[in-house]
Amino acid sequence: MKPLPFLIAGAIFFTLIASASADMAVEACFSPQGKCSTHIVREIENARRELLVAVYAFTSDELAGALVQAKKRGLMVQVIIDREFDSRNDKSKGKFLEVQRIPVRRLSGSKAPNAAREAGLMHQKFAVIDRRVVFTGSYNWTHAADSSNDENLLLFRDAGPLAEEYRRIFERLWERKS
Amino acid sequence: MKPLPFLIAGAIFFTLIASASADMAVEACFSPQGKCSTHIVREIENARRELLVAVYAFTSDELAGALVQAKKRGLMVQVIIDREFDSRNDKSKGKFLEVQRIPVRRLSGSKAPNAAREAGLMHQKFAVIDRRVVFTGSYNWTHAADSSNDENLLLFRDAGPLAEEYRRIFERLWERKS
Repeated sequence: MKPLPFLIAGAIFFTLIASASADMAVEACFSPQGKCSTHIVREIENARRELLVAVYAFTSDELAGALVQAKKRGLMVQVIIDREFDSRNDKSKGKFLEVQRIPVRRLSGSKAPNAAREAGLMHQKFAVIDRRVVFTGSYNWTHAADSSNDENLLLFRDAGPLAEEYRRIFERLWERKS
Repeated sequence: MKPLPFLIAGAIFFTLIASASADMAVEACFSPQGKCSTHIVREIENARRELLVAVYAFTSDELAGALVQAKKRGLMVQVIIDREFDSRNDKSKGKFLEVQRIPVRRLSGSKAPNAAREAGLMHQKFAVIDRRVVFTGSYNWTHAADSSNDENLLLFRDAGPLAEEYRRIFERLWERKS
């Protein structure tokens, strides 16, 4: 099937975005060689309005600090993390971010929300910045992802339609109760 | 910085790919709504030559079966999985794939290969098909990723330079001893 510019096609949760988008570019960073956190921090520092982060595991001091600075600059910052990971890991930044007045949601997977044992994981690892930058990949926001794991992190710039799709998924997660 | 077509720039492990690539398109699938395995199976079935898979966790009967069929059609199939996940999970497909004559490598993270406790995870979740299709995202090749977790899966088509970059990373992993 030939891609069409900006066509949103297929099932509700399946989006087709054409590369013909005038400026959209994708960059790939690989851990542990790439020091990928550098690219996330840079994009957080360049953000102007909004930072939406949905990651299974968030333990990175560096990335948490960058979000706190963005919050202090007046940006809207929202963070979704996995409920079980957060509750079982002392290094999870959930509490720290809340103390810094960043709203945090802790979620389990979307199935069987009333039966914890059957629930899956909130296993996302993405961020949407200013409705036009998207990070995703295998990379959680952890020290291990940056320094000792094998990981890939993708960065999309000027990715309007793709960013809107990820932002819509973020909003659905944010509105979920558990 | 303005993207340039097909420019490979920056540090060794950081690639800039312009969207201007004539046909490259990216599709995003979200679990559990999207039944994302459908898209992986379809691309495996359409493959002609080569399937390279590097995923932290591989427990999906459906995806393992699709790889076995591709192997029987004569394609080159190689799979890298995380050593610890494979050894600790009865449902891991490592052994099954080997019995089906698909070469499998079990790796830990790249740091401290001789000190298991300090090693990280082989946490990748990507596949490269025929040097032009790339899958990546948070999605492991598991039943949970498809049915109960919140996940995202990206599919790039006609993604020559990006596919080559992921393929190069795959080859480095494949050649690693542990």
